[in-house]
Amino acid sequence: MKHSPLVQSLIEAFTCLPGVGQRSAQRMTYALLERNREGGLYLAESLRGAMEGVRQCRRCRNFAENELCPVCADPRRDDGEVCVVSSPSDVLAIEQSGEYRGRYFVLMGHLSPIDGIGPSAIGLDLLEEQLREGGIRELILAVGTTVEGEATAHYICEMAEESGVRVSRIAQGVPMGGELEFVDGATLAHALKGRRSV
Amino acid sequence: MKHSPLVQSLIEAFTCLPGVGQRSAQRMTYALLERNREGGLYLAESLRGAMEGVRQCRRCRNFAENELCPVCADPRRDDGEVCVVSSPSDVLAIEQSGEYRGRYFVLMGHLSPIDGIGPSAIGLDLLEEQLREGGIRELILAVGTTVEGEATAHYICEMAEESGVRVSRIAQGVPMGGELEFVDGATLAHALKGRRSV
Repeated sequence: MKHSPLVQSLIEAFTCLPGVGQRSAQRMTYALLERNREGGLYLAESLRGAMEGVRQCRRCRNFAENELCPVCADPRRDDGEVCVVSSPSDVLAIEQSGEYRGRYFVLMGHLSPIDGIGPSAIGLDLLEEQLREGGIRELILAVGTTVEGEATAHYICEMAEESGVRVSRIAQGVPMGGELEFVDGATLAHALKGRRSV
Repeated sequence: MKHSPLVQSLIEAFTCLPGVGQRSAQRMTYALLERNREGGLYLAESLRGAMEGVRQCRRCRNFAENELCPVCADPRRDDGEVCVVSSPSDVLAIEQSGEYRGRYFVLMGHLSPIDGIGPSAIGLDLLEEQLREGGIRELILAVGTTVEGEATAHYICEMAEESGVRVSRIAQGVPMGGELEFVDGATLAHALKGRRSV
């Protein structure tokens, strides 16, 4: 069907969202136009606000609109533990587990010399500075297990050793409540190798 | 987790979309902020454009940004057949079947005296005018089978009879390719009553 241009352009714009294909985009467009134009205008306003106003925390590089993100600005968090993650979504995932009380350092990517992404592009100069300043007791690596993730972890390990800061890595193994038959081979092999006596 | 205010407000705004809950809204917000801010700004622009610029076709009340919608403006469509539907989504569904070459009339609702929705609120004065003008050979009702839909269909039938225009209703029965066991009882009863000899 030929939509009118404004409708067509909105349908296409919606498909930039993760998990939204042509059909969902149509459904969203029509739902807003038919029943909730105010909601649509509020969404437009919020999108512009966030896309233009959300920057990076001066300290941990996570999303922030002020100098510091909510975590870094919270005096109840333990400044001595820093969990290094690849992206703000990872911070969200760890925060939602409710177990962690330290702060974060968000790389916003991985080392990837082939793509021209060196240490300073992912903030490692800033992290090195913070390691040298003292105050960090432990660096917890949670950077994923891809080739780039491993290379990044290795680089950060060396950096921390130079500054005499302890480094750990979050445990890898089978997920809680997961059935073994659905766990991939690499994870299982890793879980076997990392077994602990009970 | 406490998001920064702009991020929080965008997550909430996304939940106004159909099928989008808290988790998807978070995923959308983070995906745009991390990887596609231009896409986010384009979506904001398209939303504002559509919410403010999309009005109703002067002739059929469907979404349009000019005087006439793309269907009414298309000279290859048959002006003698008019399909009456409840909403623009219904037009979309019928257009996507690719079978219909007439034009539409979009009520944008149903008669519902209890809610103060009378004939003119759903454009029936405009439809009556078009029926009187002549040129319409057949009115095809596709207004749904709720109580309000039935009342609306009944009202339109009487209007068309007064103008001497033929009225039909789209067939109701079991869906193509549907398994009988998954069809609800009311539809099955209707399909049995409406059986045809082969």
